Order: sequence, then C-alpha cells, then structure tokens
Amino acid sequence: MALQHAARTAYGKDRMSITIRDVADAAGVSTATVSRALRGLPHVDPETRERVRQVAAELDYVVSPSASRLASGRTGTVAVITPFIDRWFFSSVLSGISDVLQERDVDLLVFEVGDPGTNPGLPPERRLRGRVDGLIVVTLPTDAMRVADLLALGLPTSFIGTTWEGSNSVTIDDVSAGRVATQHLINLGHRHIGMISGRPRASASQAHRAQGYREAMAGAGLTPEPSLEAYGYFTVQGGEEAMTALLSQPNPPTAVFAMSDDMAFGAIRALQRHGIRPGSDIAIASIDGHELAELLDVTTVRQPVVEMGRTAAEALLARMMDEAAKPEEMMVPTTLIVRGSSVPPERTSTAGPQGRPT
Amino acid sequence: MALQHAARTAYGKDRMSITIRDVADAAGVSTATVSRALRGLPHVDPETRERVRQVAAELDYVVSPSASRLASGRTGTVAVITPFIDRWFFSSVLSGISDVLQERDVDLLVFEVGDPGTNPGLPPERRLRGRVDGLIVVTLPTDAMRVADLLALGLPTSFIGTTWEGSNSVTIDDVSAGRVATQHLINLGHRHIGMISGRPRASASQAHRAQGYREAMAGAGLTPEPSLEAYGYFTVQGGEEAMTALLSQPNPPTAVFAMSDDMAFGAIRALQRHGIRPGSDIAIASIDGHELAELLDVTTVRQPVVEMGRTAAEALLARMMDEAAKPEEMMVPTTLIVRGSSVPPERTSTAGPQGRPT
Repeated sequence: MALQHAARTAYGKDRMSITIRDVADAAGVSTATVSRALRGLPHVDPETRERVRQVAAELDYVVSPSASRLASGRTGTVAVITPFIDRWFFSSVLSGISDVLQERDVDLLVFEVGDPGTNPGLPPERRLRGRVDGLIVVTLPTDAMRVADLLALGLPTSFIGTTWEGSNSVTIDDVSAGRVATQHLINLGHRHIGMISGRPRASASQAHRAQGYREAMAGAGLTPEPSLEAYGYFTVQGGEEAMTALLSQPNPPTAVFAMSDDMAFGAIRALQRHGIRPGSDIAIASIDGHELAELLDVTTVRQPVVEMGRTAAEALLARMMDEAAKPEEMMVPTTLIVRGSSVPPERTSTAGPQGRPT
Repeated sequence: MALQHAARTAYGKDRMSITIRDVADAAGVSTATVSRALRGLPHVDPETRERVRQVAAELDYVVSPSASRLASGRTGTVAVITPFIDRWFFSSVLSGISDVLQERDVDLLVFEVGDPGTNPGLPPERRLRGRVDGLIVVTLPTDAMRVADLLALGLPTSFIGTTWEGSNSVTIDDVSAGRVATQHLINLGHRHIGMISGRPRASASQAHRAQGYREAMAGAGLTPEPSLEAYGYFTVQGGEEAMTALLSQPNPPTAVFAMSDDMAFGAIRALQRHGIRPGSDIAIASIDGHELAELLDVTTVRQPVVEMGRTAAEALLARMMDEAAKPEEMMVPTTLIVRGSSVPPERTSTAGPQGRPT
C-alpha cells in the first residue's frame, strides 16, 4: 500500500497546490502525523490513519514527491541516453520526453554519448545505479558494445528508433519509409535513382531504409547501382559530400533518395554549388519532416518525432509504475509530403550542367 | 584534506582507467583500506595511509566519483534551466554544456521551462535543493518571477545570455551585434530598414539588440519607423508572420534586421510566398550563425553558441570547486558573415512585386 501510494505520487500529476498543512488542519492532527499516516509508517493510531487518508483523498492531496522518493527508494529521475543533443531529430525527441516527464514531476538526466558509428561512450553503471528509475535509449545500434550491460541494470527501459526484446520501443516503419520515398521518385518517372545513406556500420533503422529503397527499385524492375550510393553520416556536411561524390560519377543520378532531411539539405547545397537546381535538375526525396524542410522545399516522409519522444516516455512511466506491465513495441505512422524538390524527369533540363544524358 | 580531495575527484577529469584494485595491489593492502585511507576515514594506520596516498598519487588514481559524492555530500550533478530544448540556440548551448560536464564526470539534469515571454515554470526548490551542486540558467529574463528565488538556494550559478550581479555570466555584446548587422545594411546603401524583434516583453538581450539597431540608424541620421518593427517571437513561423506584416505596409522596407536566424528563415519564406527574392529584392541580416544559414544564404552576425555553453559550464565548475572564486562576466566575440541575403539597393529591382518605391 505504501509503495503503491509512493508510486502514484512520484510519477502522478503534480498537485502541489494542496499542502500537507491543509490536510493536517482539516484532519485536526500534526503535519508529522499526516506524513506518517500517508506513508504507512508505524506509530499512527489506526483510526487517525484512516481519517487522514480520507481527508487527503477528499482534498486530492499526495505526498510531496521528494519525500516520497526517500520513502520509496525511488529517485524520481529518468536518464536519456542519446548520441547527440543538438541535432534536430535528437533535440526534438528530447523535447517530447521532457514534456511528459515535467507533467509527471520526474527529473530528466541527459547523457550525450556521441556518434553511434564509433563506439558510443555509454555512461558507466555507477552513474545510473540508484540514481535513476528508468532509461530511454535513443537510436543506438543494438549491437553497440554496452547496451546489453545497461539493460543488465534491470531498470525499465524504452528504446526509440530500435527495438529490443522485452523492452518498450517506439519506431517508424523504416522499410516502408524508404520504400515510399523511392517509389515516389519512381512514380515520377525516374529510373536512375541514387541513395545517400548513413554510415558503413549501419543502425537497424538505416538498414531498413536501405531495404525499402531496394524493394521499391526491384518492384519496378530496377537494379540499384553501387556507384550511386554514398554515405552522408546523417549530417548536412556529410550530405553535401555524398551528393558531390554522386555528381562526380560518369553517369550521375536524375533522382536521389536521402535517408534524412539534414543530408538532403547538404545535397541541395552541393547541387547549388554545381549550378544544378534541386527538383528541376535532380529530384530529391528524404525522411524526417524537419522544420526547415518546407522552407527548403524538400519532399520528405515525415515522422512524428516529438510524439515519438512523448510516447516512449509515457510507456516508460507506465512500466515504472507497474513492473508487471507488458513491454510494448509501438510503430508510429509516417506521411509523405511532396514539395518542389521532386518533379518528373520530363520537367528536368535535357542536358544538365554536368552534360549528363537524361 | 578529505573534502579537498573529494572536490578534486567529483569535478576532476575522469581517470577511471586506474582502479582501486590497482592501487591496493601496488600498496599491498585491501581495497577497503585504500578506500578508507584516501577518504581520510579513521582506523587506518598512519604509515599505511601515507603509503596508499603515495601509490595513488603515482598512479594518478582518484576515488570513484559516486563514492566521493557520498563522502563529500555533493551530488555530482548540475541543473540547466532553459526555455527550450529543441530550438537551435538552446540545443547548441546544451551540447556545449554537456561536453564539459561529461569530461568532468558530472551529470546533467535538464529543466525545460517554456517560453520566457510567459511566466516560465521554474523548477520548485524541492527539485533542486540537495539534488544538484550548481545551476546554469539560459536566457531567462532576469525579471522573471522566480529567478531570484532560484539564486536564494545559494548554489553556484552561471547565466548564459544575461548577466546577474555576483554570478558568472556568458554573453555576446548584443548592442554591438544589433549595431553591426544594421550598419552593414546602411553601408550597402539602405535607408528604409525594418526590424524583426522578439516579443513585447523583451529580454535584456533583445532590448540590447534593438538598442544597437537604433544607434546605427541614428548614427546615419535615420529615424527608425515604428511601423517597420514587428515581433517574430524568435521562431521561424513568427519571422514569417512578422515579414508578412512588414510587406503589408504602404511603404515596405528595402532591408530588414532580424534578431535571430530562425526569424530570418521565416522572413525568407514570407518573401518567397510573395514572389520577392531575398537579397536582390529585399535585403536581410540577422544574428546567430545557425548551421543552415549558409545553405539559405543568410547574412548573419555569428555567435559562438556551443562555446558559450562550454564556457558557462567551465566557469560554473571552477566556482563549484572553489566557492571563493570570483564570479566572472564573460563577453564572447561575434563575427559578421556576409552572404547573398544582403546586397546594395542599386542591385535590387527598381519596382518590386509590391510596386513599392526604392
């Protein structure tokens, strides 16, 4: 009973407008007695305990979270382990997580572990054990050296962007997203379609997006050419370099599927530097739904990123309040947004600045 | 001595490659004895204590931070209080802070308090007291209701974007930044210069940027017209609406100073929707140095945002290690980056789509 109460308090909505003093006055006892009664501690007369509980229920009063934390052994804190803080996808996910945790009066500890392509510097156990009640792991490759070690801490965990047996996860259908973006380019009439992917050591989501690209190509009787694939490392700079590499091919693509909006932005910068117009010269479609994709007129498969953060946090809190709750694998829907960066090849110039055939 | 040691440990560089086992083996004692000796606890023979200390010094070993936290009463945690997590300036600042804290093995607790134009929902004392060793407050108006309450906690504090008597602060020279951006437009030959500012209830930095704009205008014998100022609320959407309002004036500006890159991006979207070309039709200069400002060809006064986060964190850690350290007011330099969004008025069309005089 005490634990259940503490759980409701530590993760329930903030109701601090009612104070312990209000309850004590209404019940005609001291604040110390209210505190002991509500936490199920001894040395409180059963009748008094019952009266305090009734008054507290009437006033919708809950014990202050910090006190409950001490009483329950909970920390009232969730740790988010994320490769980056300052890139659009990650800061948007963090913001969604933060929204939910703040509503529930739970603190947010952030560990920025760096590029998942290298070995991410996961926080050591001593920085998590006894300091947090749950973990949210954002888009780390599940084969990363120490993810299994993190899970061995036995804390409730939500994954975003990847799935993990026995844990909550929130993902998009990455295969579908890659297929939809590529199929859109095919349906416009493009045949010579390149891809800007992430990095050599692919995350699950990258591998799935590549699979979607290949499926769409195969469905149209097209064979992806290895020379038309380049790594963009999910950055603007990387996308620019990848597109520059594609443009230096003997037979550049007429359309490119980029796995993220940031890489599409970089690709557009490369096109501009070559005097090539995005859309009318080379079509581009990507995945994300970045705030600036509209401004840059980029066709993209939008994923609900803030919502993904919110959903992961809510699932985690549910698990923290009830350890018997079943883990959920949640897949959220995406939406193709068509803009000026993707037009049919008949509207592209017949001989681009590269003198390539069309 | 023990406290001093703990302080060095809790905020010093991470040296976890040497373990307590290494020290115990080298000194020929148990790990428990090493622990007691290094923390200055009783029941250790003075000669043993001295030997352990020498060995530890030779191996450059420090007690594990979590153990030291318990011993020192420190939490090993810093709280960042920020209006937003997912906007470029704030996520970049956070990333700089995170870099420094991770190097020192200090945890990062993030409180996202919402738009400073409304009353920010500052975290209550109970969520900070005894839970963190220091605070970093990012661009909150210093007249915000409860900033003084936060400082009353007596924790070392660094401000970013605003100054506070007796606390560390990291700012740019906002007056200069506003003046430089505006002077640049004046030097190109513009006379009819509008401004997209933040919000009616101005932060100190907003007020200073507006002052810089007015100083530059006055220096050129120009009078700012109230009808050519609009609020953009530091967002892309707000910048678009502000520019739309300016374009609906009887006599629209030929150039606009925007107080942030996000607002400049929104202004460009408004220009595009009106069939007006940024730069050649209406010149724009702003402040920030957003990663995408280059792609969007926006002239901007760049501030070193990640570096500002790093500097604030370093100053805070210095204060946390030595409470007698003097608070520092640090002003970091900015750089004007001229791009295609600002060109002389003689290169603008003689009659824009609005039919305005030039």
